[in-house]
Amino acid sequence: MKLYSYFRSSAAYRVRIAMGLKGIAAEQVAINLLAREPLPGYRQAVNPQGFVPALDTDADGLIVQSLAIIEYLDETHPEPALLPERAADRAYVRAAAQLVACDIHPLANLRVLRYLKRDLGQSQDAIDDWYRHWVEDGLTRLEAFVAAEGKSGRFLFGDAPTMADCVLVPQLFNARRLACDLATVPTLVAIDARCTGLDAFRQAHPDAQPDAV
Amino acid sequence: MKLYSYFRSSAAYRVRIAMGLKGIAAEQVAINLLAREPLPGYRQAVNPQGFVPALDTDADGLIVQSLAIIEYLDETHPEPALLPERAADRAYVRAAAQLVACDIHPLANLRVLRYLKRDLGQSQDAIDDWYRHWVEDGLTRLEAFVAAEGKSGRFLFGDAPTMADCVLVPQLFNARRLACDLATVPTLVAIDARCTGLDAFRQAHPDAQPDAV
Repeated sequence: MKLYSYFRSSAAYRVRIAMGLKGIAAEQVAINLLAREPLPGYRQAVNPQGFVPALDTDADGLIVQSLAIIEYLDETHPEPALLPERAADRAYVRAAAQLVACDIHPLANLRVLRYLKRDLGQSQDAIDDWYRHWVEDGLTRLEAFVAAEGKSGRFLFGDAPTMADCVLVPQLFNARRLACDLATVPTLVAIDARCTGLDAFRQAHPDAQPDAV
Repeated sequence: MKLYSYFRSSAAYRVRIAMGLKGIAAEQVAINLLAREPLPGYRQAVNPQGFVPALDTDADGLIVQSLAIIEYLDETHPEPALLPERAADRAYVRAAAQLVACDIHPLANLRVLRYLKRDLGQSQDAIDDWYRHWVEDGLTRLEAFVAAEGKSGRFLFGDAPTMADCVLVPQLFNARRLACDLATVPTLVAIDARCTGLDAFRQAHPDAQPDAV
């Protein structure tokens, strides 16, 4: 398999963690999102959605969108499971992952910050405020959700990592890069610390990638 | 069951469609997102994530996040299926849904447009440009993805509606409200027209909701 990735992409980071937890190896192809033309022909010839990550599978062609990739890997490589068995528990894990993937990350990614700067003429301070606003708002909601559901343990669901942890850790990495206030999310911070003690999470870290600069 | 909804919420609209396709009835509780305090205590006492939709199930408590709700309903009420059987096809449907739910909708929802206005002092013209930029960009990516995958038929996957169609139709409804250019997405427009010919889609339409104004 081949994973189109960018070391600092939060969405690619999620998939790298999931693959590590399942022990699935893949060649990494770096797509430099900072370049004007990240990979000539990537959108035309490889991934028409144009984003990273994308997973070129041996059996099923290209699979895109980080959460869809993780669910695909969970269905085709069931052990260890990244989603629980009961429907209500699966919904909890998905809802935690989607709170980050739909309500935090899209507002803080590179193309959006660029639009704020180039098209709306915003200062770096205003852009940093925007970033911290959405990240802190969303993480606070996640902390409250996790507390109310009462399903967390050493990890977001029970005592083994799930898809939700694969999504949490990259978001906290990003939050720290921009010096977001994490004082209101102690449960998330504690779970993140347990995750980053595991090899799969460490090996997926941006700094450990071949294209890290 | 009880669905916390807002007639114009794109995410609630998705769930209403899915419930209609499966013939699942629910009492609707309106959360007026335009109000200063949408529903007193909603975030504290009902849904700690604070968004709509949220589905209060009889058996499993509260389920939140629109795509997690639809997957939950598909697992607990399997007929008609809103996800295909094969893992690669499920990934295609999820990736189409997530392109809208993660890469388009979050940038165009109410709280973000409000931030642009109140906190960044943007004019209504600049806000409308922002909205159209992200919607047109994302829909163009979705059109290219659907064409490249070659899995669409009368609907986004084959000849029966899936979760992807539940997500497409509300996004096109929003796109038209803001007069987005849909000339570049003829496949999506044709599928949308077939969807809106079905009762489940018609009954889920914002104008058909009890809280419509």
